[in-house]
Amino acid sequence: MAKGFLMVLSGPSGSGKGTVSKALMEKRDDIVFSVSATTRKPRVGEIDGENYFFLSEEKFQSMVENNEFLEHAFVHTNYYGTPKKFVMEEIEKGEIVLLEIDVQGALQIKKNYKEAVFIFLLPPTMDELRERIVKRGTETEEDINTRFSNAFKELDFVGEYDFFVVNDKVENAVDDIEAIIHSERLRVKRHKDIKKQVTMQGGK
Amino acid sequence: MAKGFLMVLSGPSGSGKGTVSKALMEKRDDIVFSVSATTRKPRVGEIDGENYFFLSEEKFQSMVENNEFLEHAFVHTNYYGTPKKFVMEEIEKGEIVLLEIDVQGALQIKKNYKEAVFIFLLPPTMDELRERIVKRGTETEEDINTRFSNAFKELDFVGEYDFFVVNDKVENAVDDIEAIIHSERLRVKRHKDIKKQVTMQGGK
Repeated sequence: MAKGFLMVLSGPSGSGKGTVSKALMEKRDDIVFSVSATTRKPRVGEIDGENYFFLSEEKFQSMVENNEFLEHAFVHTNYYGTPKKFVMEEIEKGEIVLLEIDVQGALQIKKNYKEAVFIFLLPPTMDELRERIVKRGTETEEDINTRFSNAFKELDFVGEYDFFVVNDKVENAVDDIEAIIHSERLRVKRHKDIKKQVTMQGGK
Repeated sequence: MAKGFLMVLSGPSGSGKGTVSKALMEKRDDIVFSVSATTRKPRVGEIDGENYFFLSEEKFQSMVENNEFLEHAFVHTNYYGTPKKFVMEEIEKGEIVLLEIDVQGALQIKKNYKEAVFIFLLPPTMDELRERIVKRGTETEEDINTRFSNAFKELDFVGEYDFFVVNDKVENAVDDIEAIIHSERLRVKRHKDIKKQVTMQGGK
């Protein structure tokens, strides 16, 4: 039985992490999204353990202290984190766990769990990146400039990742990531008893 | 400019290394075969630097002493080896250098150059392996048994490799290896200045 792996899809704001993740999930049934934990209150229709693990602040803090998160952050007024347990259980089942996360989060994960596969999603050009940030439409000129300048700085961290994928078109980015998945599925270290599989009569 | 890499395709006798290498070379133009050095005399039509680097025994020995081979071995009455220089020059040019080699040779390379991508080619079953060994036709029952038992023992070394590919059908094995190539081409460590590529206007 082969193990799965944690696939960290990361990149600056405007690189298209969300769109690419969605397209990938629609195409494949061997990928599950990592479920985050949060201290914010559930919104109408949100299901615990599916959209998020909804936790009290006390519970969240005790999990932080017990080193039960792969990464966590305080955003606006709430905590968010990636519980290790869920990820590890899915990996044992053979699943690919997809975690779409910003660059800071990915770097935290790399410290705690370097066995993950780290993919940096890049915009094709900085002009295109600016356009994508602008197209979100909800931000002021100042917000746009801040996001753009942060994105530019975050490109410096690409060296910390295993793979880079240029998101010029979503289909191409998905193709690249599927090749990475295909290849990672062939990794010896994720398989037990390769010899046994071959030497058992009719085994494959 | 991206670097290429050394791809070591290895596996026991009967795993189909030769057939798969040939099919792969026919399909792609970004792969070059590693050219071996040998002390045996050139046969009619063989070209130095293309089929082999034909060397005197003195030259070969001095290269061994100067650590200029990734691996070398004495077979029958001649020396054979993989010169480091050729491989490194092709990698710098961005080529994938394919080295089809037995398990002992691959393990030597791993000691000298762990940056290579190591692929272990497996037969689908041991029955199939025996059949392939038998089909070669030129061997005695004893030779067949020796080859078979060596192949069985060599499966123990799969753990030393990065990837394994089951050669049930040549097309499937080639597909798997092409996914590995696609993925390895996206490795951050083989690329310089990823940031520069993105931030240069119109760059890709």
